[in-house]
Amino acid sequence: MAVYTHLSAETLAALIAEYDVGELQSAKGIAEGVSNSNWLVETTRDRFILTMYEERVDTRHLPFYLGLLDHLAAKGAPVPRTIHDRDGNLFRTVEGKAVALIEFLPGVSVGAPTVAQAASVGRSLAEIHLAVADFPQRSEQTMGLAKWDQLIHQCGEEALAEIDPSLADTVFSELSWLAGNWPGGLPHGVVHCDLFPDNVLMLGDKVTGLIDFYFAATDFFAYDLAVTHAAWCFADHGRTFRPRISSALLEGYEAVRPLDRHERAELPVLSRGACMRFISSRAYDWLNTPVGALVTRKDPMDFVRRLEFYRSEATRVFNSDAD
Amino acid sequence: MAVYTHLSAETLAALIAEYDVGELQSAKGIAEGVSNSNWLVETTRDRFILTMYEERVDTRHLPFYLGLLDHLAAKGAPVPRTIHDRDGNLFRTVEGKAVALIEFLPGVSVGAPTVAQAASVGRSLAEIHLAVADFPQRSEQTMGLAKWDQLIHQCGEEALAEIDPSLADTVFSELSWLAGNWPGGLPHGVVHCDLFPDNVLMLGDKVTGLIDFYFAATDFFAYDLAVTHAAWCFADHGRTFRPRISSALLEGYEAVRPLDRHERAELPVLSRGACMRFISSRAYDWLNTPVGALVTRKDPMDFVRRLEFYRSEATRVFNSDAD
Repeated sequence: MAVYTHLSAETLAALIAEYDVGELQSAKGIAEGVSNSNWLVETTRDRFILTMYEERVDTRHLPFYLGLLDHLAAKGAPVPRTIHDRDGNLFRTVEGKAVALIEFLPGVSVGAPTVAQAASVGRSLAEIHLAVADFPQRSEQTMGLAKWDQLIHQCGEEALAEIDPSLADTVFSELSWLAGNWPGGLPHGVVHCDLFPDNVLMLGDKVTGLIDFYFAATDFFAYDLAVTHAAWCFADHGRTFRPRISSALLEGYEAVRPLDRHERAELPVLSRGACMRFISSRAYDWLNTPVGALVTRKDPMDFVRRLEFYRSEATRVFNSDAD
Repeated sequence: MAVYTHLSAETLAALIAEYDVGELQSAKGIAEGVSNSNWLVETTRDRFILTMYEERVDTRHLPFYLGLLDHLAAKGAPVPRTIHDRDGNLFRTVEGKAVALIEFLPGVSVGAPTVAQAASVGRSLAEIHLAVADFPQRSEQTMGLAKWDQLIHQCGEEALAEIDPSLADTVFSELSWLAGNWPGGLPHGVVHCDLFPDNVLMLGDKVTGLIDFYFAATDFFAYDLAVTHAAWCFADHGRTFRPRISSALLEGYEAVRPLDRHERAELPVLSRGACMRFISSRAYDWLNTPVGALVTRKDPMDFVRRLEFYRSEATRVFNSDAD
């Protein structure tokens, strides 16, 4: 959460002039994004989000991310459009870094979702899963099982024990189990993979924006649903499962895109994988982020608790909702 | 530059409902403010800045700061109004912290001002100096000479030498000189004391907003002009004096509020004091801010260079402009 780069008013005004969007009236650095700097820009015509990609983003992938936004927005999904510059470019370079101008969408990110909000999120997720069917690009999943394994091994047993005495045992046994049980051949496409409440804008019960597609990759639709389930259906740092939110999310999803028999059967495995994905990246960042750094560390134990829940309850949770 | 506190959408919506401003549509944490968290809030009716005061702000002073904004805005100065809640309160409490809703003003902060922009800033500064004449509140200057002296002594000679080998000698001799030469009896009132380009919003050559009055205190008008001069008339971290910007700033100021003979004569002393004010706070923060902390450290040497300039050139600069 930071603005890493300072852009002067003069630089911003010259940049905005490269787009057919009116004249710069205001630009406020906003505290969003981990690998990029963002400004809420106002022109004489409209508001926009200006994103500057910092070191961690490989600009070779920008045509994929930004093209995906355009594809989904054109299908009517609540996704911000990329504004093209006067020459039609999806992104430009300022002070050696790539920048993109993105549509501003209203809405706020909910803290504790209501049942109606969870159902809306489920429906929106299914809508983007349908809308990507004819998206022509692919992007390899670089945050899959092999990466979780690599991150955990880079942490090492001793450092993991500093986070929690039981963490190393939990994750090494889970990684083995996942390697032996991860499904193949499920319906797939480009999926969001990071649909936390922070990445969903809502007004009341309505989803007005799905944002931050920078982890989007080609993967199983049901895995994306499992990630969303883990992100939305718990309270109190993973200590409390919210069954009515879970039911609403799954029912909302299936109202638009019913799961097939194989997808439903694999949800217990996929949900455990979703937990490992966040345990591994959070443990790695926890151990490799200096205290007091610009980025707030997130506790990997929040997802260890969810993992323990899914280990014992996932079959019941996903089957009961299947009735 | 940070958002220190997370406020959920539910908390924000409930807060906004306490004001007669329409319904919450959007809220983005913005990367402004050192001692407070800020959100750019959009409602069905307008845009606002929501400020939450963190630990460093004594809420007993809020009626002063917020009342000052109201007073200046009522006089037509380009200063954001404080929005009062439905019960007429200037500020409220959320999660144990004071919050205020402030008018949003368009404009951007310039990097390198033009002559026309410097003249506008001078005029606006003089306008607020005239507008505070009948502001009934006072606020003791807590960032004056005694505080500079205290901060420098808290740093200590050895630590100052770590910043720069010559720093301790420079500041100790300067503090003695200022103590012997600081003027008394100049025209005074509540002044901004921190009018850096960051705290001025502009559209083209026009000043659209003077913001961040949290260092405002009762002091000499000419000292505020000296602070603004030091903040605006140098480039390249204090290495380059910009004479045309200096002339434009002073002429703009005097077009609205001519300096009297005593004020003009004391500008060389006041400008050296303005440098010491920022050297002392920056040196203290430099030595007491962990590397990588949320707040970016500012280099005290930027103002040592300005001090050296004023020591040798201030009489010429301020007299030549007086012709």
